[in-house]
Amino acid sequence: MSTEPESVAEPDAYRQLVGELERINAVQSATDVLSWDQQVMMPEGGTPARSKQLSTLSSLSHELLVEGSVGELLDDLEDTDLSGDQQAVVREVRRQYVRAERVPRDLVEQISEATSEALGAWESARENDDFAEFAPHLEHLVGLKRQYAEYIDPEADPYAVLFADYEPCLPLSQAESILEELRETLVPLIADIRTADAELATDAFDGTYDTDTQEALSREVLELLDYDFDRGRLDVSTHPFTSGNQFDCRVTTRFDKTDPIGALTSTIHEFGHAYYTLGLPDDAFGTPLGDHRNLSVHESQSRLWENHIGRSKAFWELLLPTFTDAFPQADLSAREAYEATNQVYDENFIRVEADELTYHLHIIVRFEIERELIGGELAVVDVPARWNELYEEYLEISPPSDTMGCLQDIHWSHGSFGYFPTYSLGSVMAAQLYAAASEELGGLEANTRDGEFEPLGEWLGENIHQHGQRYETNELVRQATGADFSADAFVEYVTEKYGELYEL
Amino acid sequence: MSTEPESVAEPDAYRQLVGELERINAVQSATDVLSWDQQVMMPEGGTPARSKQLSTLSSLSHELLVEGSVGELLDDLEDTDLSGDQQAVVREVRRQYVRAERVPRDLVEQISEATSEALGAWESARENDDFAEFAPHLEHLVGLKRQYAEYIDPEADPYAVLFADYEPCLPLSQAESILEELRETLVPLIADIRTADAELATDAFDGTYDTDTQEALSREVLELLDYDFDRGRLDVSTHPFTSGNQFDCRVTTRFDKTDPIGALTSTIHEFGHAYYTLGLPDDAFGTPLGDHRNLSVHESQSRLWENHIGRSKAFWELLLPTFTDAFPQADLSAREAYEATNQVYDENFIRVEADELTYHLHIIVRFEIERELIGGELAVVDVPARWNELYEEYLEISPPSDTMGCLQDIHWSHGSFGYFPTYSLGSVMAAQLYAAASEELGGLEANTRDGEFEPLGEWLGENIHQHGQRYETNELVRQATGADFSADAFVEYVTEKYGELYEL
Repeated sequence: MSTEPESVAEPDAYRQLVGELERINAVQSATDVLSWDQQVMMPEGGTPARSKQLSTLSSLSHELLVEGSVGELLDDLEDTDLSGDQQAVVREVRRQYVRAERVPRDLVEQISEATSEALGAWESARENDDFAEFAPHLEHLVGLKRQYAEYIDPEADPYAVLFADYEPCLPLSQAESILEELRETLVPLIADIRTADAELATDAFDGTYDTDTQEALSREVLELLDYDFDRGRLDVSTHPFTSGNQFDCRVTTRFDKTDPIGALTSTIHEFGHAYYTLGLPDDAFGTPLGDHRNLSVHESQSRLWENHIGRSKAFWELLLPTFTDAFPQADLSAREAYEATNQVYDENFIRVEADELTYHLHIIVRFEIERELIGGELAVVDVPARWNELYEEYLEISPPSDTMGCLQDIHWSHGSFGYFPTYSLGSVMAAQLYAAASEELGGLEANTRDGEFEPLGEWLGENIHQHGQRYETNELVRQATGADFSADAFVEYVTEKYGELYEL
Repeated sequence: MSTEPESVAEPDAYRQLVGELERINAVQSATDVLSWDQQVMMPEGGTPARSKQLSTLSSLSHELLVEGSVGELLDDLEDTDLSGDQQAVVREVRRQYVRAERVPRDLVEQISEATSEALGAWESARENDDFAEFAPHLEHLVGLKRQYAEYIDPEADPYAVLFADYEPCLPLSQAESILEELRETLVPLIADIRTADAELATDAFDGTYDTDTQEALSREVLELLDYDFDRGRLDVSTHPFTSGNQFDCRVTTRFDKTDPIGALTSTIHEFGHAYYTLGLPDDAFGTPLGDHRNLSVHESQSRLWENHIGRSKAFWELLLPTFTDAFPQADLSAREAYEATNQVYDENFIRVEADELTYHLHIIVRFEIERELIGGELAVVDVPARWNELYEEYLEISPPSDTMGCLQDIHWSHGSFGYFPTYSLGSVMAAQLYAAASEELGGLEANTRDGEFEPLGEWLGENIHQHGQRYETNELVRQATGADFSADAFVEYVTEKYGELYEL
């Protein structure tokens, strides 16, 4: 699995550290199973027992990390001669340890309780379109998360500290400049699209589609993409997600009678996550070398398969016969399917229903608002007005309600500030990786048309998956693509693709 | 939930003890979920990660019990004034603690490794009908389990110590005399049946039965018995089992195209286990008062529903219309269904396929052999001969191979010596409980015919389920039935039922 010769023997302290990590990781990966079960299999009544199990395992894994021998072993390893891989493991564990060790357990528990309460309030506020119901909880969470950031690094921008929970090794300034470039590219591009004369086949999938047949089709697509069902499953859940490790990584999707594309793109998106996880090295299970890099890298894998494969013309040329076999009533060409799958909406308020372009403006609105909230420049009470102002500015639309506006996402009720940008960063990285793979391998479009996904899969495996957390994010991208992580490839990709689609 | 007034306040040490127990139990009940998932949902490739998760959680729960504050808290509580319920909790935890604390962790791990290896060897031995492949592993396990028993109590009969892992509060001598009474009743009863003239409708269910329809029927039966699907699920697994707690208790079953009765009786059997678990008090979750009594009590609940309800004439009068709706090809009367479901086999070698009578002789053979093995009176190499000799003696049949003989059960490869008797004890207890409920409530047969299971369910809830481990086994039975735990009711039940069936 290693790409470099292991010239340095394993020191005792290192071996012990790995043993501890494997235990901690076993508890965390057990938690993943409980959580998957909760969302996919658990009967409704099971909540009290499940909550107790999850909170106990969460305390135990925190205790194992902070109260056991990890801190001491890290100290022992300070001046030890280590191989590159060993250094990477120590670097990642130290980062995790320092963050866990600095935050008082009491605050972690307060945050956990506050998010439980906020979740219920958010659900009710969204249902009643009443931001005031959620506001005090949001206020409380913003305060707790500012405290949390201060414990970790009292000198740093608290938003940068929170962002690092999801992106531990990508500077916030870099993320910010990438998002800025996205905004500068997308706002005028979308404006051009809206005034373009092109007539896309937006109604190509109108009709109803039996959900059992949709499920069978999702399975066929997963087979086509070489998903390993011996190490995975496809199930249904309210929100599609992926969960697991390199031995057992499961995807979920959801079905809507009137929207066969929603299930397909969700399935392909989750496949991308699972394909990454399943590509992590077996023999490093339980250590950072067997664990995924940060969220933007994970999202780059899902977006690459969803957008660069699943939403491509070539993929529709491949899939159309299978699709029309499954749904003989569908009467459309591959070009029409491609157009319908890639239409840019004039007026859509909902992030998760957005197209590939406007999506990022939804993210940028959230990014700006949460920075202002955590930075203390925006009061919670002013969030709805600020939200609507930014939607007007970037998307030229006015959300008709807070339910369709600032109450639509679950993230803030989880206390997740700094998570949203990773979605856009993932798309940007996907474009850079796909361009590099394309440059190196050639013929990727023809491969897609032929259902030949192995070369791309192998390229991703070699350049991304097998490394786990060996490299930090920028180094990983540089090693894979020969260039720094930037928005260049994404800008080129959307300009070309949507230029052709909308005849700009 | 409590049946006695809580006149004594909760001492601090008691409150702390309960907190610790809840954590330990949360880890154990998380393990149950992982194990259910492994048997029902997990893709094949998931084994390495799952094994690591399970072994880590098992060490952690052992460490929490033995290395944490439990021992000290138990000491503190020695001379504290406690309520009856509190005393019961302390009694049960002390027993668990003492056993865990006396056995070196090293031996526990050796046993765990030896059983992993034995399992593979047993599977291969069974497949190849080659006892010699399994013998060294069985030898090794017998040795380890004797050591294990010696650590717990060097003065006691080692088999009694092992038996107490499953039946912590039932004397082995009592189990032995019950099994002896079974043997004395059943050997002549079965001999009479074999020479009886009665012609039972043994072929009433011949034919093939679509398994999807069988599954729907199993669901209908569970609905009929008031299984709470908001706290449970029905799934399929190789071996039917029940897993969970009072908030979430799931059953599995299996389907065979040619045997619709196998799935039905398995489903009803597992329902009995689940109904018990779901009847444990919610507010005692995580403590012995919210946990089931020992295995014989659990088995009494599954056997009561399986045999006294599921195999009764009245039940077939209730179910037949539903059954023939599901399978219109079935052309039989309720009496014929009853006869077919209760036929006593002349020549069956396999315990899990045995009827209600010969079943116990299969158990008694195993009980005698494992006592002799652990007692050092029987060498492992002589197990096959001894097995066949006892089958000849009690059942007058000669197993044609070790695969159909002493290699048929998984239990010994798990190192489970002392487990088998709990199956028979469960049947015996079921008969005693059913007779007492019948005496107290009256009209149970008519209730079954009418699909009215609530009175019986409530009686079991009040007399057994709600108590958890409040009482020790004999006391629980005495409180429920007014009599000591004995084979009397069982003997009466089988004599009457099979006397009528076989016109004896």
